[in-house]
Amino acid sequence: MIIVMSKKATEENINAVTNRLEHDGFSTHIIRGVEKIVIGAIGDKKAISSMGLELMAGVENIVPIMKPYKLVSREVKSEDSVIDIDGVKIGGDNFIVIAGPCAVESRDQLLTAAEGVKEAGAHILRGGAFKPRTSPYSFQGLEEKGLEILAEARDLTGLKIVTEIIDAYSLDMSLAYVDLIQIGARNMQNFHLLRQAGKSGKPVILKRGLSATIEEWLMAAEYIMSEGNYNVILCERGIRTFETATRNTLDISAVPLIKGLSHLPIIIDPSHATGDWHLVTPLAKAALAVGANGIMVEVHPNPLQAMCDGPQSLSLKKFSLLMEELKPLSQLLKKIV
Amino acid sequence: MIIVMSKKATEENINAVTNRLEHDGFSTHIIRGVEKIVIGAIGDKKAISSMGLELMAGVENIVPIMKPYKLVSREVKSEDSVIDIDGVKIGGDNFIVIAGPCAVESRDQLLTAAEGVKEAGAHILRGGAFKPRTSPYSFQGLEEKGLEILAEARDLTGLKIVTEIIDAYSLDMSLAYVDLIQIGARNMQNFHLLRQAGKSGKPVILKRGLSATIEEWLMAAEYIMSEGNYNVILCERGIRTFETATRNTLDISAVPLIKGLSHLPIIIDPSHATGDWHLVTPLAKAALAVGANGIMVEVHPNPLQAMCDGPQSLSLKKFSLLMEELKPLSQLLKKIV
Amino acid sequence: MIIVMSKKATEENINAVTNRLEHDGFSTHIIRGVEKIVIGAIGDKKAISSMGLELMAGVENIVPIMKPYKLVSREVKSEDSVIDIDGVKIGGDNFIVIAGPCAVESRDQLLTAAEGVKEAGAHILRGGAFKPRTSPYSFQGLEEKGLEILAEARDLTGLKIVTEIIDAYSLDMSLAYVDLIQIGARNMQNFHLLRQAGKSGKPVILKRGLSATIEEWLMAAEYIMSEGNYNVILCERGIRTFETATRNTLDISAVPLIKGLSHLPIIIDPSHATGDWHLVTPLAKAALAVGANGIMVEVHPNPLQAMCDGPQSLSLKKFSLLMEELKPLSQLLKKIV
Amino acid sequence: MIIVMSKKATEENINAVTNRLEHDGFSTHIIRGVEKIVIGAIGDKKAISSMGLELMAGVENIVPIMKPYKLVSREVKSEDSVIDIDGVKIGGDNFIVIAGPCAVESRDQLLTAAEGVKEAGAHILRGGAFKPRTSPYSFQGLEEKGLEILAEARDLTGLKIVTEIIDAYSLDMSLAYVDLIQIGARNMQNFHLLRQAGKSGKPVILKRGLSATIEEWLMAAEYIMSEGNYNVILCERGIRTFETATRNTLDISAVPLIKGLSHLPIIIDPSHATGDWHLVTPLAKAALAVGANGIMVEVHPNPLQAMCDGPQSLSLKKFSLLMEELKPLSQLLKKIV
Repeated sequence: MIIVMSKKATEENINAVTNRLEHDGFSTHIIRGVEKIVIGAIGDKKAISSMGLELMAGVENIVPIMKPYKLVSREVKSEDSVIDIDGVKIGGDNFIVIAGPCAVESRDQLLTAAEGVKEAGAHILRGGAFKPRTSPYSFQGLEEKGLEILAEARDLTGLKIVTEIIDAYSLDMSLAYVDLIQIGARNMQNFHLLRQAGKSGKPVILKRGLSATIEEWLMAAEYIMSEGNYNVILCERGIRTFETATRNTLDISAVPLIKGLSHLPIIIDPSHATGDWHLVTPLAKAALAVGANGIMVEVHPNPLQAMCDGPQSLSLKKFSLLMEELKPLSQLLKKIV
Repeated sequence: MIIVMSKKATEENINAVTNRLEHDGFSTHIIRGVEKIVIGAIGDKKAISSMGLELMAGVENIVPIMKPYKLVSREVKSEDSVIDIDGVKIGGDNFIVIAGPCAVESRDQLLTAAEGVKEAGAHILRGGAFKPRTSPYSFQGLEEKGLEILAEARDLTGLKIVTEIIDAYSLDMSLAYVDLIQIGARNMQNFHLLRQAGKSGKPVILKRGLSATIEEWLMAAEYIMSEGNYNVILCERGIRTFETATRNTLDISAVPLIKGLSHLPIIIDPSHATGDWHLVTPLAKAALAVGANGIMVEVHPNPLQAMCDGPQSLSLKKFSLLMEELKPLSQLLKKIV
Repeated sequence: MIIVMSKKATEENINAVTNRLEHDGFSTHIIRGVEKIVIGAIGDKKAISSMGLELMAGVENIVPIMKPYKLVSREVKSEDSVIDIDGVKIGGDNFIVIAGPCAVESRDQLLTAAEGVKEAGAHILRGGAFKPRTSPYSFQGLEEKGLEILAEARDLTGLKIVTEIIDAYSLDMSLAYVDLIQIGARNMQNFHLLRQAGKSGKPVILKRGLSATIEEWLMAAEYIMSEGNYNVILCERGIRTFETATRNTLDISAVPLIKGLSHLPIIIDPSHATGDWHLVTPLAKAALAVGANGIMVEVHPNPLQAMCDGPQSLSLKKFSLLMEELKPLSQLLKKIV
Repeated sequence: MIIVMSKKATEENINAVTNRLEHDGFSTHIIRGVEKIVIGAIGDKKAISSMGLELMAGVENIVPIMKPYKLVSREVKSEDSVIDIDGVKIGGDNFIVIAGPCAVESRDQLLTAAEGVKEAGAHILRGGAFKPRTSPYSFQGLEEKGLEILAEARDLTGLKIVTEIIDAYSLDMSLAYVDLIQIGARNMQNFHLLRQAGKSGKPVILKRGLSATIEEWLMAAEYIMSEGNYNVILCERGIRTFETATRNTLDISAVPLIKGLSHLPIIIDPSHATGDWHLVTPLAKAALAVGANGIMVEVHPNPLQAMCDGPQSLSLKKFSLLMEELKPLSQLLKKIV
């Protein structure tokens, strides 16, 4: 940690800061520049956040040197994490395709979707049983009935299944049914839920919050991992910006950036990132080219009748075409689709 | 609802859209412009979100006419809501001051804070018993012990007390102790929690999400009210922008804007909005001048030793000076502090 | 244009609005819904912006139906524009590579860069002769000397050359030297400069403003085209968001979105979008996969010694490797590199 | 400057960095922490930006210690700058009111506006002679004719006059007419124009760019001051965020923040910040309470007929009421209006 002292800081101010630091177990180094004095403090980072050094007389700024996360960091684990869901591998050279409707609406709808996406080549089936909706007057999900239908679809197709959990209740209920759980953008900093997901041991797809920085996102993954659950998959799904022509702005740079900072797999959700099915196929190809470990795509047997997110859903036919387009690209990029 | 057809839409496309609308119970009006055709649809708004009209051939855009919220709207209730917490009134001409530390750290710390802010003129004591922290390695709150200390402070000072709840567990535990509950920025779209807060009947301070639009914020309040709990107080606490010189950017325009759209009281939290105690007093004065119904301010007996948010906390002495500065201003503006 | 009347609008208010519209040459249609009344107005859009309808009693909102741009629109010209710079084609199935240093620093530096990027396969050489710098104390460019060096590099290598112009002075001076001019992000709404670039007839690379919406960007292109210069190439270079881990956030969705709205070519600048050379190659591949018409990349013979943007510049060797990686990808995607 | 070395940096890497720094005239200090090594470099900051240290092996991050601006800084000049426009003082305890229409539309319109705002108590008259408009098809200003009308209004009322300049042409033309020039948000980083404004010696109102950080804004002021023109007034006019309910988001915290960082006066433009006249009066009061040195408000004799910005313009009557509301507030706050 570096403490920058203001131009007007007195020797007394400097002594007070170094005394405080040393009292708390740090060793200190003073560097006297032409205009400013900086103090380097060496010791255990954890102690610092509650030290209130910013408030001491003469202190202008505190510059942290250490990253706040550990378990997610590539400094701690240099090789890529590959998460194995009973034979389906996420991470490394694999390019995973997760597809399915926004919500489980009915047995008929989901089984049709499942068979369609399976035939086109998807690996994992998504479908919401619990829906966090902006309006209290919108459809909120089939809950346990939805989970049963998802499980039936798995039995029928061999696809793994994933659903979003939104609280302790939906988490507990889902564990018996699904292969992976998803934590949505709105819950990325629901720290209690992160801990519970960590304790569950179930693989977790962790979506980036609407306005979460990369660092906050990695800290949320750290919450899950700090409970001993190392099976975390990051999912970039667009961030909120001033642009209104798309629902969100896909931050595609996050993929190579995260690859540098962390060993965790990262996938892209082009459907939520844009809210517009026209943009899904080009962005799926970009996701493959940029080095993502997979995509999560909304697919509905009949987008016109979808109970949610119809405009961003691909029909089964369009999804099948997308998979055709991805195939040669993945061979070229030596990704295993 | 207005459906804008693209320039190339055929008569067949137009008929398909009007047939679909009429089948779902809407009456339709076609307006043929020089370059575009628009279709006006009259009927029950709720049915629309799942119609998938955006996907029909020839449809360029859908323009909703109705606001998605009802109970929070000033169209539904034209006079200001005034929430009465056993004599302490929030809304209308009252300017309420909520003050206290980020977290309840100890009996001693909280009672000192409570007595100090009471003496300076605060009405409600804040203190976190459950802390949502970005890092899993940070202090997470005293939980029930913290609630007991808050209740003791109320008995001692007569101040009302408020604490943030973060899930069903903390909500249930808090109800027996506190006068108001607070839903934090990170939980503004935790829809299950909003419903449970609604069912509890306890007055709720609803903070704006880090990147929530005004409309989303009002929809979150609608969730609480849709469960029959009309005692909702909105709290603007800064939004996330590109500016890094302050922790967040206080959206002060939200106050007069919300006053136009809704009858609910709105207060300002200058501490979280900026993360810097130097800015708290000027912004508190601005909050009063702009017409807010109150402020929520972080105050700590010893900010240098605070376990969280020290840099944005006022000392008791500084808080007392702030209250002195607000007094003549509130008399002038005919606000009751 | 649709005028939404508020719930409390009287018949008198409605008549006043329709009279005003009809007086200004619009025909009007009134649609009476359950809760709101909307008025459709048909006529010449240009007249509206100065009408002040929003201020008339009872008017709640104005919804424009027409897009504000014409010449840039794909509705006006459905096939892709291909801009031919003396044999180098930009647009359609071509994937153009523009490369070179941030600034022309010396004859030696630029000629080395030019030969290197030529050999690796670039088509156009970039190099700044006039540098808009955040600090008045930073290097501001070699001006005409820089243009002379660029021209020499063209003679030597056969590469086309482009430089950024920042005002009337630099525009006038550059015209005699360069094949294309570039308008930078900070000048995207320098409307006078846009007009002058339009009048010059020289092909223009128009970078997106740091916080410009897609619509504003297309309007800026409309400025250039409204002067009769149809040779406009859009360049997405990242937008400003809350994320600080990258210099900007590359809005890659802009590519397929713009392809739907406009016939103009669009390229991507991964160097400025991220500020980090590590991210340039993955994003260049994503640019190709998403359907962009090219990339603009910063390349320096010795990034460690670069006078600006060193950290985001590729060395000649790294650029050569990037070009190798792009080749098979472009063959697969049937793009002509 | 602090150089943070990565965990894997070798002694060789560290030596290379210190050698490089020492070669460029810095003295260096190495601090060896538990996990990281940091190097403190002392010397002349200007040299650094072109050093490319970020690219050296083992370097993880560079942390600048010095602020990049000098002349604008309160560290250089501790007392408030007060700019005296022939008796009208801006800065210190004065609260200046600048009012007038978006554009000079006609002699009649401007003289009516001038007399109205004078009578209500304004000090300076604004009016656009050169209009930067998003659309090339919108009204672009009366140019020199507009300046003549402004000068006539000054003669008639005694108000000082200000107009926005957008390039060298409009700057040159305006100098003979106006008392102050304004540089608009879109030109905040038009560095050539900043220099020319600096050379002109005329007092400058410098608006904050749509997505400019506080630091970039102060650097833009530094450009003007580096040419010897110390008469710079900063004007906060809203920044671009995700919120669409207002045209921009007024960053009111910028006022006390800038007061800490700089000695320059800062005023607020509530009209452009919101785009909605309903919000202008509450925000003007907030500007006074937060400690701003004045406001700039759009006022039009007939907002319904305004050629631009009608919806955000106050009528003369509403402006007069605003001034009445400000008066007791300014007396209380000991501001001189």
